[in-house]
Amino acid sequence: MSKPSIPKGTRDFLPVQMVRRNYLFETIRSAFQKYGYLPIETPAMEKMSTLMGKYGEEGDRLIFKILNSGDYLTKANEAAWAAKNSNQFTSSVSEKALRYDLTVPFARFVVQHQNELAFPFKRYQIQPVWRADRPQKGRYREFFQCDADVVGSDSLLYEVELVQLFDEVLTNLRIPDVTIKINNRKILTGIAEITGEADKIVDMTVAIDKLDKIGEEGVVGELQERGIGATAIEKIKPLFTLTGSNESIVASMNVMLAESETGLKGVEELKFVFDAIEKLGLKQAKLQFDVTLARGLNYYTGAIFEVVTSHFRGSICGGGRYDDLTGIFGLKNLSGVGISFGADRIYDVLNDLELYPDFSSITTQVLFVNFGDQEAAYCLGLLQQTRNAGINSEIYPSNAKMKKQMKYADDKGIPFVVLVGDNEMATGELTVKNMTTGEQSNMTITTLIENLTNE
Amino acid sequence: MSKPSIPKGTRDFLPVQMVRRNYLFETIRSAFQKYGYLPIETPAMEKMSTLMGKYGEEGDRLIFKILNSGDYLTKANEAAWAAKNSNQFTSSVSEKALRYDLTVPFARFVVQHQNELAFPFKRYQIQPVWRADRPQKGRYREFFQCDADVVGSDSLLYEVELVQLFDEVLTNLRIPDVTIKINNRKILTGIAEITGEADKIVDMTVAIDKLDKIGEEGVVGELQERGIGATAIEKIKPLFTLTGSNESIVASMNVMLAESETGLKGVEELKFVFDAIEKLGLKQAKLQFDVTLARGLNYYTGAIFEVVTSHFRGSICGGGRYDDLTGIFGLKNLSGVGISFGADRIYDVLNDLELYPDFSSITTQVLFVNFGDQEAAYCLGLLQQTRNAGINSEIYPSNAKMKKQMKYADDKGIPFVVLVGDNEMATGELTVKNMTTGEQSNMTITTLIENLTNE
Repeated sequence: MSKPSIPKGTRDFLPVQMVRRNYLFETIRSAFQKYGYLPIETPAMEKMSTLMGKYGEEGDRLIFKILNSGDYLTKANEAAWAAKNSNQFTSSVSEKALRYDLTVPFARFVVQHQNELAFPFKRYQIQPVWRADRPQKGRYREFFQCDADVVGSDSLLYEVELVQLFDEVLTNLRIPDVTIKINNRKILTGIAEITGEADKIVDMTVAIDKLDKIGEEGVVGELQERGIGATAIEKIKPLFTLTGSNESIVASMNVMLAESETGLKGVEELKFVFDAIEKLGLKQAKLQFDVTLARGLNYYTGAIFEVVTSHFRGSICGGGRYDDLTGIFGLKNLSGVGISFGADRIYDVLNDLELYPDFSSITTQVLFVNFGDQEAAYCLGLLQQTRNAGINSEIYPSNAKMKKQMKYADDKGIPFVVLVGDNEMATGELTVKNMTTGEQSNMTITTLIENLTNE
Repeated sequence: MSKPSIPKGTRDFLPVQMVRRNYLFETIRSAFQKYGYLPIETPAMEKMSTLMGKYGEEGDRLIFKILNSGDYLTKANEAAWAAKNSNQFTSSVSEKALRYDLTVPFARFVVQHQNELAFPFKRYQIQPVWRADRPQKGRYREFFQCDADVVGSDSLLYEVELVQLFDEVLTNLRIPDVTIKINNRKILTGIAEITGEADKIVDMTVAIDKLDKIGEEGVVGELQERGIGATAIEKIKPLFTLTGSNESIVASMNVMLAESETGLKGVEELKFVFDAIEKLGLKQAKLQFDVTLARGLNYYTGAIFEVVTSHFRGSICGGGRYDDLTGIFGLKNLSGVGISFGADRIYDVLNDLELYPDFSSITTQVLFVNFGDQEAAYCLGLLQQTRNAGINSEIYPSNAKMKKQMKYADDKGIPFVVLVGDNEMATGELTVKNMTTGEQSNMTITTLIENLTNE
């Protein structure tokens, strides 16, 4: 029989990985809660109608569909079968699908439960999502998203606190050299407006987005290729040399966008966030305006966020303000803003830089060696005491060779091993071996417990 | 547009439910870890070949299958289509399915990763599973299982610690009137042996299992119907009147099963667990022999557990020893023992009896009222201080009417509201309203933080 395996693009998590991932999720979770965000969960499966048409044609294709139960073929689409049209056929044999992200289920949730929620509704959600993407390094078919959103208010105080939240989580995770990039969709609209070619906003932002990679000349070339006129390009050019403090950038943008009401509004919103953060300070991250930031252009309406560290290619977090998330489900004009932590990317950074704390208090701290029935019976009483004191502990299950028992402690990373033989049972002084230093010392169970709970 | 909804048998969890469920899972998780069990996770999807044929025909039917991606119809089974044979058709268009329980994925995991694990391998796993069952009260299509297992040892010390683990978790959850029922598959085999009709073990246990419901006479009738002979029935009868202490029951069983080696072995195993637990004591639960306990007869080989409380109809936990869990994946003779907490049933009991502690330290503790831009700016600084002190806190996002802001605090169950106007900004003495008592008092931010962190 060949070894069993799992579907490609999915992962098993072994204890050492789980302990690390739980640390990551716990750090994010506790920061979310500190900022007043509360957890929700939605089912893995959503109705097909909830998901389809929300992620574009490509997204629809990548959604995992679930076959109807029972004799589903009786309702299968004969014409689609004859035409071998898999897409059409699917909708006749499948009514449910696995969630593709947390955003659409969240929008569905808010509309469905609108009468049970306190608005502004601050929620976080940490759950896996599934995509039938081609698996490759760092891209999985099952991966976790960690989102915090608030809907039902357009207050910029939330943009401020979400910047703080990025900073707090990534500082607590000790990820170095973090930059929180911020832009505003209204500024992008303003730029398109002042060029006189407002309809070309997508072409412009796609080109400007490449500034880092292809430089000023490259961008100009791309703008020309995309049919942006020379006058317009002249008006865009000052963007390329925007440098200096956030304050001076705001001043330049105000001049540049003087003719666009929307653009000025965007600068004002940006300034509000800058001023507040300037006053409050950040723990570690830098907050930086980046006019080339144009993610989610088709749904973000205000602030746009992206977070990077020099230790990872690509962003590790993102987010922004949207004005009509729940509109697709019939609840209009509910403004919201949210952020998302790329858990699997951050996990990679934590692993690469070995940023984990000591986990020995989560894994087993003490192993009682088993020298035989009588000794084991004696140790069960001690074990009960360590466990009652909240110390993760266990006994080796059989009177195996010492070497084997010590190897078990080693493999499991157990820092303390307790040896109890005739002597120890007579005196009550246990022999305790520190597996890190190799040192052995004698102490009562009370002292051992004191030592370990004071650690 | 009609309100969106979710597939039947699935659930959304709102914050108030999530906080309760997280408490439940956290309590189980921390006890598992205290006993040396470490977390693993497996993917939601398994290969079809991993799952099919493991749960019987009915189980196969209830597994949710995932449609292959892309142009899957090109590989669809034409003959199955023509015959409208949905079952056969499925295997040609679906290679993956959602896990049906945690046991089979765990067996697959152990075999797949056998060279990376330290044996005996103690793992716990808390994840959702999916079944295409007909939904009804208390039965869902997506629900959580919480399993702890140890594989790679036949030591009875694990039976003892799993009994302690049941007791620990349910005591910590404050579930009253808990009985841990224990039986042993070898005793059931022994009973069948001494009757001289060993092949009728299933019929016998099915009948004996009804003792509670239909009484001694009923069981005798059922045994007759199932073709058990009169001599056999006479030998079974003493079981019906087994009462008294666990010790006296063990003594009676030893007499009754004197002719069956297997049966005596079962009694010996049972006695080992009784003696150890007698010596160690349990925090709250009772441990009780129950010869009618016959769950998982086709895979349990030693101890069989079931846990009940008088506050729930049906069992809330189960478990047992198995000798060949991983055999189905080619790794033979790996003995294991495991238990499972019925999270959704326990959740129902916690709700019915309102056994939850105070959650105000998890949800937001402090709301800063927003009296306008200047006051809000001032409060942001205070908010930063409370958050840095680890206090979950937030500010209302806009200068809305007082009544609206207080309603928000109420709806969200926030216990303290801070009011900062001109006076407060001038003196630094905040007005703090206790939402439970209605009392208002003045204090500095330092005092507020001290009060809340000492709580």
